[in-house]
Amino acid sequence: MREFDKQKINTVRRGSKRALYDIEKVNTILDAGFVGYVAYVFEGTAISIPMAYGRAADRIYFHGSLKNRMLNTLLKSGRISMTVMHLDALVLARSGLHHSVNYRSATVFGSVGKVRNTSEKESALKCIVDHMIDGRWESLRPMLAKELDGTLVLEMTIETASAKVREVGVQDEKSDLTLPIWAGLVPLKQIAEKPISDDLLPAGTKVPEHIITYYDNHKVDLGV
Amino acid sequence: MREFDKQKINTVRRGSKRALYDIEKVNTILDAGFVGYVAYVFEGTAISIPMAYGRAADRIYFHGSLKNRMLNTLLKSGRISMTVMHLDALVLARSGLHHSVNYRSATVFGSVGKVRNTSEKESALKCIVDHMIDGRWESLRPMLAKELDGTLVLEMTIETASAKVREVGVQDEKSDLTLPIWAGLVPLKQIAEKPISDDLLPAGTKVPEHIITYYDNHKVDLGV
Repeated sequence: MREFDKQKINTVRRGSKRALYDIEKVNTILDAGFVGYVAYVFEGTAISIPMAYGRAADRIYFHGSLKNRMLNTLLKSGRISMTVMHLDALVLARSGLHHSVNYRSATVFGSVGKVRNTSEKESALKCIVDHMIDGRWESLRPMLAKELDGTLVLEMTIETASAKVREVGVQDEKSDLTLPIWAGLVPLKQIAEKPISDDLLPAGTKVPEHIITYYDNHKVDLGV
Repeated sequence: MREFDKQKINTVRRGSKRALYDIEKVNTILDAGFVGYVAYVFEGTAISIPMAYGRAADRIYFHGSLKNRMLNTLLKSGRISMTVMHLDALVLARSGLHHSVNYRSATVFGSVGKVRNTSEKESALKCIVDHMIDGRWESLRPMLAKELDGTLVLEMTIETASAKVREVGVQDEKSDLTLPIWAGLVPLKQIAEKPISDDLLPAGTKVPEHIITYYDNHKVDLGV
């Protein structure tokens, strides 16, 4: 098992028995998410912004407008972190303080820079689009030069990371177990409903294979 | 319609046609979330951490261990922001750059301080637990003094905020509409599955009314 270095910034101190530093586990959590929370500082206040992203090995890609306040602030600092979390259940205990949630989360830390080369920019955007739906990019019309020129693309290099996972049941005080109070889990999950085709599709445009594969992989009845 | 002041920190500059400053809209987005992303700075890197929270009027409550690194850092700075986002759909366009997501997000900004008074601490924890499942708190055994003493509770006062909502279909270039490329939405939603009762419940402990009401409100078949 390959692990991230435990540095001061990524060492989990609260609830450390739930902490993991396994690279594959972190990547699995990243790859299952649609949105990552990237933080930056604006005039003394730290702000979390949800961002689409893509991952290739130890690189994470983001994009935005050339004037995007957060992306430009991050480029100036050269440092970035992102958190991705999946919420799996509400944990409802017999006492207030043992209420919790089951989840899988990963926080990655590293350096960040601008992607300048046009073909590398295009590869990064492919990575972001295919992160949403694998195989989507090759079904699209090619990017235009002016679109690439007008887009700011950032590449993060993951230097270290940590994951935290809670996947157990209710953990109450032993002395509370005889109380006549219901306790248990409310499992939560994100599902995809049937795709909604754009009204303006030319007649006969079918739902393509990469979309059907996506629903197959997520075990959702496509119904089309 | 009551609105938040548009200050430099909360004025949305990218995609500003999707920005809202309506207080009720922001509160609706906050109240529908289980987890908010709070940002803080550790040794020069801004980090986003998912947090449970509760809201009462213009106050947001958080709790954690007395030694929680983030909460203590926020207390020192006195300033805090939190982002809550609901992901509603993948927006799959005919070209890479028009790929997007439908979502409802809110970011709140304000001051933060420690709750010291014991009964106010207890009210804040009730707010956090009832935010998960309304009516849960009154079914629980009372908090112990040592539990309250061992818990750090923070109160944020919302001073300003912004919301961003995208809820439209694919928006492609007109010149792309005749291409034989499928475009559309993949709707996403978070659902609750049947509650899982704790194995250690005394015989005859029934799923309580507040849990049944929760599933009724979310139109989920309880199946118990």
